[in-house]
Amino acid sequence: MTIEEGSYVLLYHSPQKTWLVEVNSGKKFHTHLGVLEIGEAVGLEYGSHLVSSKGKKIVLLEPLIYDFVMKSERLTQIVYPKDLAFIGIRGGLTSGSRVLEVGTGSGGLTTYIASIVRPSGHVYTFDVNPQFSAIAKKNIRKANLSNFVTFYDHTRFDEANCGAVDIVVVDIGDPWTMIEKTYESLRPSGTLLAICPTMNQLEKMASTLTDFGFVFVDSMELLMRTIEARTGKTRPAMRMIGHTTYLIFGRKAQHGRSDEALQ
Amino acid sequence: MTIEEGSYVLLYHSPQKTWLVEVNSGKKFHTHLGVLEIGEAVGLEYGSHLVSSKGKKIVLLEPLIYDFVMKSERLTQIVYPKDLAFIGIRGGLTSGSRVLEVGTGSGGLTTYIASIVRPSGHVYTFDVNPQFSAIAKKNIRKANLSNFVTFYDHTRFDEANCGAVDIVVVDIGDPWTMIEKTYESLRPSGTLLAICPTMNQLEKMASTLTDFGFVFVDSMELLMRTIEARTGKTRPAMRMIGHTTYLIFGRKAQHGRSDEALQ
Amino acid sequence: MTIEEGSYVLLYHSPQKTWLVEVNSGKKFHTHLGVLEIGEAVGLEYGSHLVSSKGKKIVLLEPLIYDFVMKSERLTQIVYPKDLAFIGIRGGLTSGSRVLEVGTGSGGLTTYIASIVRPSGHVYTFDVNPQFSAIAKKNIRKANLSNFVTFYDHTRFDEANCGAVDIVVVDIGDPWTMIEKTYESLRPSGTLLAICPTMNQLEKMASTLTDFGFVFVDSMELLMRTIEARTGKTRPAMRMIGHTTYLIFGRKAQHGRSDEALQ
Amino acid sequence: MTIEEGSYVLLYHSPQKTWLVEVNSGKKFHTHLGVLEIGEAVGLEYGSHLVSSKGKKIVLLEPLIYDFVMKSERLTQIVYPKDLAFIGIRGGLTSGSRVLEVGTGSGGLTTYIASIVRPSGHVYTFDVNPQFSAIAKKNIRKANLSNFVTFYDHTRFDEANCGAVDIVVVDIGDPWTMIEKTYESLRPSGTLLAICPTMNQLEKMASTLTDFGFVFVDSMELLMRTIEARTGKTRPAMRMIGHTTYLIFGRKAQHGRSDEALQ
Repeated sequence: MTIEEGSYVLLYHSPQKTWLVEVNSGKKFHTHLGVLEIGEAVGLEYGSHLVSSKGKKIVLLEPLIYDFVMKSERLTQIVYPKDLAFIGIRGGLTSGSRVLEVGTGSGGLTTYIASIVRPSGHVYTFDVNPQFSAIAKKNIRKANLSNFVTFYDHTRFDEANCGAVDIVVVDIGDPWTMIEKTYESLRPSGTLLAICPTMNQLEKMASTLTDFGFVFVDSMELLMRTIEARTGKTRPAMRMIGHTTYLIFGRKAQHGRSDEALQ
Repeated sequence: MTIEEGSYVLLYHSPQKTWLVEVNSGKKFHTHLGVLEIGEAVGLEYGSHLVSSKGKKIVLLEPLIYDFVMKSERLTQIVYPKDLAFIGIRGGLTSGSRVLEVGTGSGGLTTYIASIVRPSGHVYTFDVNPQFSAIAKKNIRKANLSNFVTFYDHTRFDEANCGAVDIVVVDIGDPWTMIEKTYESLRPSGTLLAICPTMNQLEKMASTLTDFGFVFVDSMELLMRTIEARTGKTRPAMRMIGHTTYLIFGRKAQHGRSDEALQ
Repeated sequence: MTIEEGSYVLLYHSPQKTWLVEVNSGKKFHTHLGVLEIGEAVGLEYGSHLVSSKGKKIVLLEPLIYDFVMKSERLTQIVYPKDLAFIGIRGGLTSGSRVLEVGTGSGGLTTYIASIVRPSGHVYTFDVNPQFSAIAKKNIRKANLSNFVTFYDHTRFDEANCGAVDIVVVDIGDPWTMIEKTYESLRPSGTLLAICPTMNQLEKMASTLTDFGFVFVDSMELLMRTIEARTGKTRPAMRMIGHTTYLIFGRKAQHGRSDEALQ
Repeated sequence: MTIEEGSYVLLYHSPQKTWLVEVNSGKKFHTHLGVLEIGEAVGLEYGSHLVSSKGKKIVLLEPLIYDFVMKSERLTQIVYPKDLAFIGIRGGLTSGSRVLEVGTGSGGLTTYIASIVRPSGHVYTFDVNPQFSAIAKKNIRKANLSNFVTFYDHTRFDEANCGAVDIVVVDIGDPWTMIEKTYESLRPSGTLLAICPTMNQLEKMASTLTDFGFVFVDSMELLMRTIEARTGKTRPAMRMIGHTTYLIFGRKAQHGRSDEALQ
């Protein structure tokens, strides 16, 4: 695959030294590794490399959705890849899914969801903060996913009608307030999931989901540990992110009865 | 969405009591919760419920890919959802990806990959054990993903030609032996990833990938902890899976030089 | 060191097959590995072995405090060694410490504390349940630590006077109720610590400690992972205990002001 | 307890702002919180406080062994409290133990062991690097434990004779080389344990211990997670130490046969 004018590339020198940049003719990119004539990437294949003014090789990788998320501009805490990915699989996100997201934030989760549901699915996303929506739009445009996302950046959730959705994703501070508001939009058997950084949010969300008759209510946290795999001295990395968020999932049943009521 | 003759449903009574079954007219399903006239599900909507002979409500959920994987028939250790999902996001799996999988096993990873790459992508999968391939085919047929998978169940990997792929996934005991064999099939900038249950495999895989000039070689493990979110007594679950596998990822560079060579 | 009539030994066959038994002349011990003439251990040195009727070697190890705790009789959940040990170091337990324990339970924590504070220190321990105290006494006698423990098995904590203590350890369901009751007994600069299985207990304990002017209030959890270290196939064990308890520690300041008040 | 001339105090302002200092008449202590007339602490009780020149309250806590270790001077990586404590309980350290330590390093582990084995036990510790021994001596003197430690800072381990010991602790890069050298010093049924930062060290140590007939060979790692327990927003801390070291323990059997040989 060939790099074109306006393509994004992930510049790679080492795992700790990567940059996501747009390729434009004549553009120079300055780093502590020297100046890179980034414009010269036009016409090269992804996977090839340039050499900086200080003689350092920089590999031109095609950015993955992972890279777009990790390098996104942000005004808010992002959802980390380990959590994005698990939201996808446990929530039932798949090609064609129609998703309602409450709390666009900087759009990292929106980007990931859009990348999975395309080409026939769609994300409808809301945020009360227009600054967040503006950043999110920019990030999603970079990842070339704008066709699969509709933004609602006005302040009231109920002003919009997105039709029936398969999945509702809530990423706001009081996610339990959205269960009632999104209930009719979510099709029976669909998943409602929320991102809950604190155990207090998680606890309240679990009991409210149960009160609304959701079933298979399931909460968890994921921990990722980098391993330094080096011949003769393999061990986990000294530093680790100790906590990002808890996740909670529930499935909508038609009976409108609590999980306990099933017993 | 309506349940039809031959549809699969996830019967849900509690998080620990779920079953994946095919719906057929007249079929009865026996559990310790009583007999369920599963045939009566035909024509109902997903999310509705049946009542067993012992008066227990059983919710009829539409199975997610997650459920097909967790309930798959298996002759081998499965790759767990936390790992499947991270393989997807870190490996760059997306709608349209062309993937080469070495080590079909029971087909859980194949199922997940197929569900992500559809409709325009494809998985080419190999296993030297025809019994595994037979089980995997069955599992993938259940999840209705057969159109997106080509099985090679003969014994020599190089007998097949799948063309250039975006991603190579290796899930065999000696994954480093596959780097050379799949090198030409993987397009530059593409990802090669492997599932390594032991630290020894991980160490050897990391050094071999580096020797072949792969860059951004990254190893990690994921831990999932269930949280019992109950009002006034929230805590993590007492039991936990302590280890499934390490994962390792690398990106193919064109220069054929090691990561060290970049410095 | 020689095994005597009435000594305890840890019978070891494999990490999963160990038994703590008292040695008595003529005693036989029945296991699925055959019958062991345990009386023949009298006069042998610790570290030597016996052979069972089925020809299996059984090593006679001197029991550690760890073994007495892990093999204790119990009516309650025990505090695990990883937590016992951290309670010791973070709480400031040392030879000579005077300790007040509220919630004897089955006496595992009492045993550990007594083993550290001896010979000149002492543990004063309370439980409202006389059945628990009876079991605890038995366990502590086995470990030969009775001289360092005073039991109060009547029902009201304030009926006893143990004098000033260096450390207060609380292991009951509502530990915050004990802060006021033990406040005068704890010497200034001493540590109050509690075992809190749920996040809700931990949260309430943290805020109550702060309200009482305790400083250096510190909460944590410990996770232990067994590693299967085998040549060429080293990896963590598949099973793991996912949660035992949270721990919380505070130091008593004289000013009677909250941590926030220091700012 | 009263603070005297020459006493050590832990100055506490917040969990992140603590200092271990010696109290001397007329001494001033400068921090970004202002100047503290530390000499005025003489005659005060531990637990009382001073006020800095900027009006900040600083509590005068009696240092625990934990604080001496965490605030020790160091030229080497320290063993963390979670690991120290588990070494103690799993290794069978108790009041009166005689311990041989190979690899004094900065003396943190030596300090902890000495604090447990006193008053009748003893630590014999070796290091080939006299600079390390000098630092370790200083750290142990501060914690007032010099009477319980004998240093061997010459270069050959076998030049010394410490008599029979209950426990051998090895904290050097190639711990397996010490099994043979310390074998005769360790009494039967005693524990040999090692600190192994990498899985490669752990694997080699496990197999060598087994070759020497050690039984109950047990390897593990401990993870500690700080919990931020705050009313209404309790969650684990974002940052965490991802790895310190693996630990391995074995018990010396007299038969000189491997664990496998027992089966």
